[in-house]
Amino acid sequence: MQITLTMPDWADAEVAKLPPIMPSLEERMTAVIHFSRLNIEHNSGGPFAAGVFERDSGKLVVIGVNRVVPQNCSVAHAETVALSLAQQKLGTFDLGGPGLPAYQLVVNWRPCAMCYGAVVWSGIRSLVIAGSGPELEAITGFDEGPIHPHWQAELEARGIEVIDGVLTNEATAVFHAFRESGALVYNGRLGNKA
Amino acid sequence: MQITLTMPDWADAEVAKLPPIMPSLEERMTAVIHFSRLNIEHNSGGPFAAGVFERDSGKLVVIGVNRVVPQNCSVAHAETVALSLAQQKLGTFDLGGPGLPAYQLVVNWRPCAMCYGAVVWSGIRSLVIAGSGPELEAITGFDEGPIHPHWQAELEARGIEVIDGVLTNEATAVFHAFRESGALVYNGRLGNKA
Repeated sequence: MQITLTMPDWADAEVAKLPPIMPSLEERMTAVIHFSRLNIEHNSGGPFAAGVFERDSGKLVVIGVNRVVPQNCSVAHAETVALSLAQQKLGTFDLGGPGLPAYQLVVNWRPCAMCYGAVVWSGIRSLVIAGSGPELEAITGFDEGPIHPHWQAELEARGIEVIDGVLTNEATAVFHAFRESGALVYNGRLGNKA
Repeated sequence: MQITLTMPDWADAEVAKLPPIMPSLEERMTAVIHFSRLNIEHNSGGPFAAGVFERDSGKLVVIGVNRVVPQNCSVAHAETVALSLAQQKLGTFDLGGPGLPAYQLVVNWRPCAMCYGAVVWSGIRSLVIAGSGPELEAITGFDEGPIHPHWQAELEARGIEVIDGVLTNEATAVFHAFRESGALVYNGRLGNKA
């Protein structure tokens, strides 16, 4: 038995259109938000994307997107897909390992309760998010789960910087588009709560 | 690009030796702890295993083991592997979906900060653990990460029962064996903390 998670068939061509180096955080987030929009336009997953970059140079390593519904895998959030693809590409389970440059994860909203932990184990040293307020849940109906009450401080205590508020309005525009599409919101447990 | 996670080559033969139905929680946990021990004996991952069962009948769906180091994937904890394999086997991203029996996850310790969220999104209705105290971190040196301070109450508020303390001593015996083996403890970020 094995688990295979793939990027959507449109992704390779779209990655090829991106500049290989994106010096500013706004460029990096623009690419991530673009992928979050493409993912809903192609009906290939939820409105979430995440990119792994070399923090200092802005060199793109990988971009991942949410693949929960098409691949029947509730773990396949954008962050876990991106981090796993980056680790595979670089041949390490630890993006913070000796001799590696510092890596950064750029996501179009704050990580959910699961991806929060995935960030810690990944070895990245920097997390850049478009926002962390109630907008995501309010607009889309997605549940972020039981987020740790001091999530930012806990990340920073582990040497992971958190940069919040990069292109918030551009990110929430995609959430509005997702809601208007009428696509499935697949929070945990669609069946009877009993 | 794709991510492929496989069970170790010894796993199929070992699963075939298990009874297909395990009525008691002790039988289920015994099987899980056995797999956690096999995983370190075969050097195929960390000392962790997780089984997905039909809660009421005890029918085994899948057993997963930790695969972080051999597969270069920090997401590949026993719980995420087991939940993903079960979802793939059953053809759904939601183990709590309409018409399905109640599913239970049995793990040889409490979930880490990441797997905690993975439990919420998986759709399972019951979590059985061997323990949740400081023993795991104290014995092995593994970091459980920033666990939510009210993790059990948050799971129960989402309709996921938590049954703690099943075969605690049997579980910690494997952690002792792991420590004595001198195997790598691969907490997030082996490199420079700066």
